[in-house]
Amino acid sequence: MSEELLGNCLVAQSGGPTSVINSSLAGVVSEALNHECIEEIYGGLNGVQGILQEQLIDLASESQQNIRGLRYTPGAALGTCRYKLRSEADFDRVLEVFEAHNIRYFFYAGGNDSQDTADKISKLAQKKGYALRVIGVPKTIDNDLVTTDHTPGYGSVIKYISTSIREIACDNGGMGQHDLVQVVEVMGRSAGWIAAGAALAKYKDNPNSAPHLIYLPEVPFSEEKYIQDVTKVLQKEKFCLVVVGEGLVDADGNYVSTDSQSADAFGHSQLGGAGEYLRRLAEENLSVKARSIKLGMAQRAAVHCASKADSDEAYMAGQAAVRAAVAGETDKMVILVRSDNDGYVCETGLAPLSEIANGVKLLPESWINEDGVSMNYNFIKYALPLIQGEVEVPFDNGMPQYIDLKKIKVDRKLAAYTLNT
Amino acid sequence: MSEELLGNCLVAQSGGPTSVINSSLAGVVSEALNHECIEEIYGGLNGVQGILQEQLIDLASESQQNIRGLRYTPGAALGTCRYKLRSEADFDRVLEVFEAHNIRYFFYAGGNDSQDTADKISKLAQKKGYALRVIGVPKTIDNDLVTTDHTPGYGSVIKYISTSIREIACDNGGMGQHDLVQVVEVMGRSAGWIAAGAALAKYKDNPNSAPHLIYLPEVPFSEEKYIQDVTKVLQKEKFCLVVVGEGLVDADGNYVSTDSQSADAFGHSQLGGAGEYLRRLAEENLSVKARSIKLGMAQRAAVHCASKADSDEAYMAGQAAVRAAVAGETDKMVILVRSDNDGYVCETGLAPLSEIANGVKLLPESWINEDGVSMNYNFIKYALPLIQGEVEVPFDNGMPQYIDLKKIKVDRKLAAYTLNT
Repeated sequence: MSEELLGNCLVAQSGGPTSVINSSLAGVVSEALNHECIEEIYGGLNGVQGILQEQLIDLASESQQNIRGLRYTPGAALGTCRYKLRSEADFDRVLEVFEAHNIRYFFYAGGNDSQDTADKISKLAQKKGYALRVIGVPKTIDNDLVTTDHTPGYGSVIKYISTSIREIACDNGGMGQHDLVQVVEVMGRSAGWIAAGAALAKYKDNPNSAPHLIYLPEVPFSEEKYIQDVTKVLQKEKFCLVVVGEGLVDADGNYVSTDSQSADAFGHSQLGGAGEYLRRLAEENLSVKARSIKLGMAQRAAVHCASKADSDEAYMAGQAAVRAAVAGETDKMVILVRSDNDGYVCETGLAPLSEIANGVKLLPESWINEDGVSMNYNFIKYALPLIQGEVEVPFDNGMPQYIDLKKIKVDRKLAAYTLNT
Repeated sequence: MSEELLGNCLVAQSGGPTSVINSSLAGVVSEALNHECIEEIYGGLNGVQGILQEQLIDLASESQQNIRGLRYTPGAALGTCRYKLRSEADFDRVLEVFEAHNIRYFFYAGGNDSQDTADKISKLAQKKGYALRVIGVPKTIDNDLVTTDHTPGYGSVIKYISTSIREIACDNGGMGQHDLVQVVEVMGRSAGWIAAGAALAKYKDNPNSAPHLIYLPEVPFSEEKYIQDVTKVLQKEKFCLVVVGEGLVDADGNYVSTDSQSADAFGHSQLGGAGEYLRRLAEENLSVKARSIKLGMAQRAAVHCASKADSDEAYMAGQAAVRAAVAGETDKMVILVRSDNDGYVCETGLAPLSEIANGVKLLPESWINEDGVSMNYNFIKYALPLIQGEVEVPFDNGMPQYIDLKKIKVDRKLAAYTLNT
C-alpha cells in the first residue's frame, strides 16, 4: 500500500463528447467523496485549456440531483477542448496551477490525444518531484484506444445508430418504390468500429436484412466494386441500405468525400461527405433513387437512445480512476476488461498511459467478412453486450430534461496566462 | 341514420411513412372488428398500386400481438406508393377490384395527394352507382393538410427533432472551441412546420438557447442576412445552431441547395442539400468551423423518440374513420379538432376530401417572429401539446423489436393488370 497523499483532486474532460462522458464524471465525483485523503473536488473547465487559464469549479458544491443528472446528460458538462499543450511553458503552467491549488489527483477523460497529454503532465510532475497521481479515464465513441476491450461512449453510439438503421429500414422497406439506395454516413475517423456497429441492426434470422452494405475505413474503397455491391443487393431486395464511415479511403489512401478538407489542431482531417459521395455515385451510375443521411454530432449526443451498459461502465471507469489513484497508482489509464467465461462481465483494470497515447486500435480483419462489406459473428459477439439496456432520460412536458452544472468558480491564485494559439 | 351497408373493408397506406402511420392502421383494424356490417378486413399492399394489382392481405388473421405492435412499428406496414392513378382505366380497375372483393368500405391513410386519389375513387363510385364509403385518414409529417388542426405524424417528427437539437446543443455547448456553426437540415417540402418544431428545444427560461436560427421555406432566404444572423449569434454565444427546412427558397423561388434537382411522379422536386449549402456559406464567409447534420428519412421513422399524444391521436383517427363510414359518411377525411378551452383536448371531426386534396397549409405568418428566424409563443402554444408523452418501444437484447405482418394473401379473382408507368 502506497503512502497516503493528502490534497485536492481535479477532473477534466477533453476531445469530442460522448453520450456517457458525464457518467464518468459522476463516477469520479461520487467516488472522490468516499476518500478522506481527497479534500476538495474541483472540475477544470474546457480541458487543459481551462486549467492553463485557472478556470476551476467546485464540484463538491453541486447538488445531488445535478451529479445524478450527469448520468443522462449529453455533451461535456465541464467543457472540453482540442487545445494541444505545445510548449514547455504550457506544461510548466499546468503544474503551477496544480501547485497553487494543491491538486494531487488529476483525472482526465479523453481519447488517445488526451491520454498523451495526461502522460506528459504525469512525467513532468515526476521529473519535478511534485507528488501527483494522474489517472486517465477512457472516453471516445471511436472505440479506437488500445489496451482496453472497448471505450465508454462506443456502446451508446452504436445502439443509437443500429436503432436508427432498423427504423430507417422499416421506412424504406415500406416504400412502394423499388431500387432505393439509402446511404447513412456515420462517424469514425481512422477506424470502422462505429460503422461496423450498424451491423447490430440486422435481424439474426434474416441475413438479408439491413444494413446491406457497410463500408469501413479499414477496407480500401473501390467505386467499381461499390456499384457491383449495390447492384447485387437490388437484385434481391427492394432497397439497399448502405452504411459508410466518414473516414473511408480509396486504395491510395485518399478520403472518399465531396468536401474540401481542413485539418484540426492535431492535424486530423475534418471529414464529412463520404455519404453524399456514395449517394451520388449510385444515382449517377445506376437507374435508382438515392438518398443520404448524415447523423453527424447527433450520434455522439443521443442519450435518449443510449446504452445502459455503456453508461454504467462509464460511471464505473470514473470510480475506478479515483480508487486507483488513492491506492497509489499514477500515469495509468483505466481500461475495461471483458471476462466472458460465463456470459459478459466487464471489470476495470489499468494500463500505462504511454501505451494508450497515440495508439489506434483498428477493427480486427478477421471480424470482417470476405465480401469486405459485412461483419461476421465474432464482431456481433463482441458488440452486442455493449448495447444492452436503455438509459432512462427524464422527460417533462414532452422534452428531455438535461442538467446544467452550477459551476461555482474557485478563486484564482495566479496571474493570467496567455494561450499559445 | 343511414342504411346499413354490408361488405368488406379495405385499408391502405400511401406516400412517405411517418412514425405513427401504423398506429392509424391498428385503429382501423381494431375498430372494424367492432362492427358486424364489416365482414372481412383487408389490407391493400403498396397503396393504390397494390390495389390495381389485386394485392390484398387478410388483416383479420394477423395476431393480436402484431396489431398491438403496429402502434410502435415505423414505416408503412402495408407498404405505400407514390403511384398516381393516371387514366380512366386505372380508376375503373380500382372499382373492378373493389367489386370483385365486395369492398364497401375504403380507408386511405395519406397526405394531400392521397386524399385527392381517395376523392376521385369516391366520386367515380358514386357516378357508377357502386355503394362505397370512402374515408381518408390524415397522415403526414409535413403537417400541411388543410382543415385539420394538425396531422398524425407531425408531433412525433418534431419531438424527435427537438430532442436531437437539445442534445446537439449540449454537445456543441460543451466543446471548448468557440465559433462553431452547426446546421441541421430537416424535412418539409413546401411548409416550414417541421423546421419550426425545432423551436421546442429552446429552454423557456433561456431565449438565447438553441436553436438560434430557424430558416423556413415560408421566408425567402437571403445569403447576406444569413451571414448577419450567424455573426450576431456568435457575438453572444459560443456556437450557433441553425435549423433549416429542406424546402428553403430564395426571393426568386429557387431552392437553396447544393444538389441537382430531380422530380418525383407528382412533379415535386427532390430536395436535400440546403443544410450543406448553409454550412459552406458560413465557413466560406466567416472565420468559423461549420458542420452539418441531415436527419433525412431517420426523422420520420424515429419511433424510439415518438410522441405518445401523436401515436394515440393517429390510432383515434383510424378508429374514427371506421365509425364515420359505418355511420354512413363518405368522401370525407377524418380531421383532428383542438378544443382547448380547458387545456388541450383533441377530438376528431370530418371534412370533405375535395377540400383537403392538393391544398397546402402554410405556417401562419403571425407565428413567426419579426426576425424571420424564430417562432413566437403562438407556435409553441400550438405545438407543445403535440409532443406530450413517450411511445414505449419494447427493446430486447439491446435492440427495438418491431413487428412484421404475416401478410396472408387474399386469393385473386381477376386477370393481371398492367401498370401505366
